[in-house]
Amino acid sequence: MFILVNLKAYPCDPIEVATAARDVAEESGVRIAVSPQAAQIESVADTGVETWAQHVSPNGHGSFTGSTLAEAVADAGAEGTLLNHSENRLKLADIDTAVKAAERAGLETCVCANNPDQIGAAAALKPDSVAVEPPELIGGDVSVATADPDIVTDAVDAAGAVDESVDVYCGAGISTGDDVVTAQDLGATGILLASGVAKADDPRAALEDLVAGL
Amino acid sequence: MFILVNLKAYPCDPIEVATAARDVAEESGVRIAVSPQAAQIESVADTGVETWAQHVSPNGHGSFTGSTLAEAVADAGAEGTLLNHSENRLKLADIDTAVKAAERAGLETCVCANNPDQIGAAAALKPDSVAVEPPELIGGDVSVATADPDIVTDAVDAAGAVDESVDVYCGAGISTGDDVVTAQDLGATGILLASGVAKADDPRAALEDLVAGL
Amino acid sequence: MFILVNLKAYPCDPIEVATAARDVAEESGVRIAVSPQAAQIESVADTGVETWAQHVSPNGHGSFTGSTLAEAVADAGAEGTLLNHSENRLKLADIDTAVKAAERAGLETCVCANNPDQIGAAAALKPDSVAVEPPELIGGDVSVATADPDIVTDAVDAAGAVDESVDVYCGAGISTGDDVVTAQDLGATGILLASGVAKADDPRAALEDLVAGL
Amino acid sequence: MFILVNLKAYPCDPIEVATAARDVAEESGVRIAVSPQAAQIESVADTGVETWAQHVSPNGHGSFTGSTLAEAVADAGAEGTLLNHSENRLKLADIDTAVKAAERAGLETCVCANNPDQIGAAAALKPDSVAVEPPELIGGDVSVATADPDIVTDAVDAAGAVDESVDVYCGAGISTGDDVVTAQDLGATGILLASGVAKADDPRAALEDLVAGL
Repeated sequence: MFILVNLKAYPCDPIEVATAARDVAEESGVRIAVSPQAAQIESVADTGVETWAQHVSPNGHGSFTGSTLAEAVADAGAEGTLLNHSENRLKLADIDTAVKAAERAGLETCVCANNPDQIGAAAALKPDSVAVEPPELIGGDVSVATADPDIVTDAVDAAGAVDESVDVYCGAGISTGDDVVTAQDLGATGILLASGVAKADDPRAALEDLVAGL
Repeated sequence: MFILVNLKAYPCDPIEVATAARDVAEESGVRIAVSPQAAQIESVADTGVETWAQHVSPNGHGSFTGSTLAEAVADAGAEGTLLNHSENRLKLADIDTAVKAAERAGLETCVCANNPDQIGAAAALKPDSVAVEPPELIGGDVSVATADPDIVTDAVDAAGAVDESVDVYCGAGISTGDDVVTAQDLGATGILLASGVAKADDPRAALEDLVAGL
Repeated sequence: MFILVNLKAYPCDPIEVATAARDVAEESGVRIAVSPQAAQIESVADTGVETWAQHVSPNGHGSFTGSTLAEAVADAGAEGTLLNHSENRLKLADIDTAVKAAERAGLETCVCANNPDQIGAAAALKPDSVAVEPPELIGGDVSVATADPDIVTDAVDAAGAVDESVDVYCGAGISTGDDVVTAQDLGATGILLASGVAKADDPRAALEDLVAGL
Repeated sequence: MFILVNLKAYPCDPIEVATAARDVAEESGVRIAVSPQAAQIESVADTGVETWAQHVSPNGHGSFTGSTLAEAVADAGAEGTLLNHSENRLKLADIDTAVKAAERAGLETCVCANNPDQIGAAAALKPDSVAVEPPELIGGDVSVATADPDIVTDAVDAAGAVDESVDVYCGAGISTGDDVVTAQDLGATGILLASGVAKADDPRAALEDLVAGL
């Protein structure tokens, strides 16, 4: 399982979370990455943790003021990027272009979407992975362990029907180690979570709980 | 073959084009539709021609000022709608929602996209058809008959790999009857064109030429 | 006072509201307009009521599939247009271009904004009017008569400081005739309302109440 | 005069330009800042040059994946931010919110716009400065020294009519020291330029030429 901690624009200390993630990954052998804002990538990557961007723009070098160039986040130390997160929905054509821009810059890609049809569409764009963010689960009131399990398995089926090589992550509804195991049992090979770690009083303890059942 | 004439925001007389399209469709037996702006749907549909919207919004009834409600264009006489035209690119999530909104309103749907990867993604959203608009062909300087034929066949293959029931239209590079035949030979079951008819001195003659080889 | 009834994408009968608005305007001598979706402008205008678009696009004739051309809505019978409604926020550059497009097509313009700073900015773009939509009032739980009266007077002052010729409408918080009088006393020369009429069991009675105190 | 060098997404070495800008600013006494992408702010600011963001998002801390938080770019070392650059046009409401977000984070703000009406609108949002980017001058084929001088003086007048405390920068058409002097004579108190420095073979020499006449 791959655990990706999205720091969003939370008022957390990105270095504290990054250091905890690096240590728990080393101790547990579980792959864990942290996704800070673009302006924090360099200092987060300097901790040694696997670092992901939250977004890259659908353009290469050129006259694109205000864009988040894939090459620039890669130079700053990012190894992957989220795309089309539910808080940052993109045009279909821009997801396609951004996936290709990220690949040119050597970044792993995870395209988010919120139902099996969109997961199939995202998989058709050939990212490394897709993350299903069912609206029922976004916000965290319901865990994937208690929600209708079809939510994840349908996404796994939809992605697999289009391209079997695309991994499917569970993009919402995860806050405990039990949720991680449930997601794994449903066919997800990774999870995205945010507040469960980024807003935790003790991010290290939260991460240790998440990997405990793996 | 299905011929869909997109009037865009051209300074043409929509009723003149609609009347010509209705007559040529009746005389030739070829299915021809006209796609005017939302404000012109009612008067275009009144001619009896098959009428398509150029876009519908990804929402149902409610507080959506300035939207183009699928139910409203259907009530005005539209039978189908384009979505995600290259001049009106939409977010992936909005294409999905708009396809479903159009279906609820009884509208046929055609999602545009500009390369085989995006065509596969569009097909995954289960519209009735997709239209490939290769950037090489948009603008009309190159006809599909002289361009690399892989442009259309790759789109047909990409859509078919995802959902065999989705029709593939050729969304650019068509201005003559020969182009229509070429598109048909490459596997397209319909064509989108705009200026070749809408800006023609004689729209009826242009349409008659388009259907001549069918 | 000018009363503009925004039908949004509500499931109302636009002809019923339009007919009521036409009759109440004639009987009361108060200026009343109805703003339906683009696809309904032609049939609404046919009733004889003053008809406004909910939006026009920042472009002229040309290759703009899915746009709402100012000339097209004017041809369909619109005499004015809203722009930048809170449900349809536009880029600053596009508001500027759309105001100019609307003026070229002979449409009166009302640019919405939600605080005095934005009202000043909107007034700088030289529309005929601006409408202040304070977030506190949107949705209708609070009426302008009970809210902090500074909300409207600050907007009137902000617009006047930039361009005294721009009218200021009250764009939220109105549902009764008392509210209309309050808005007028605060310096507004018009009001925008939606559900209070469009969703009323008896739109004619709702309109008669609105004009009763004028 | 204030000289702001926008690095856009150019394939330049941001540290080389930053170091040159820092040195020329120190030697000449002219205020010079460099505006890199968000992911490069920290390393650019580490050179000691005044550093500006190219954009900040209209939000504070919270669930805003992919946003460019004003506080985050300030923490990384930025002292100011561009907003609404012609390559990154924003909604009016978002410019307003982003100006306020930047001010909360202690960032100086410069809102770009492309004609006197929009400059007046931008000034109404109370940024520290506005930059006029006349379409005639964007791209650099025409210098402000040879273009119609009304382009800049009209912008200065438009901003002054709304808020005299807002500085006006010349946002296009500058590549030489003579252009800088011309812009100053027309009432601009700063200039934005990009390729003239960022793509120069010798950025230091380009900057020395720009300040030579001051």
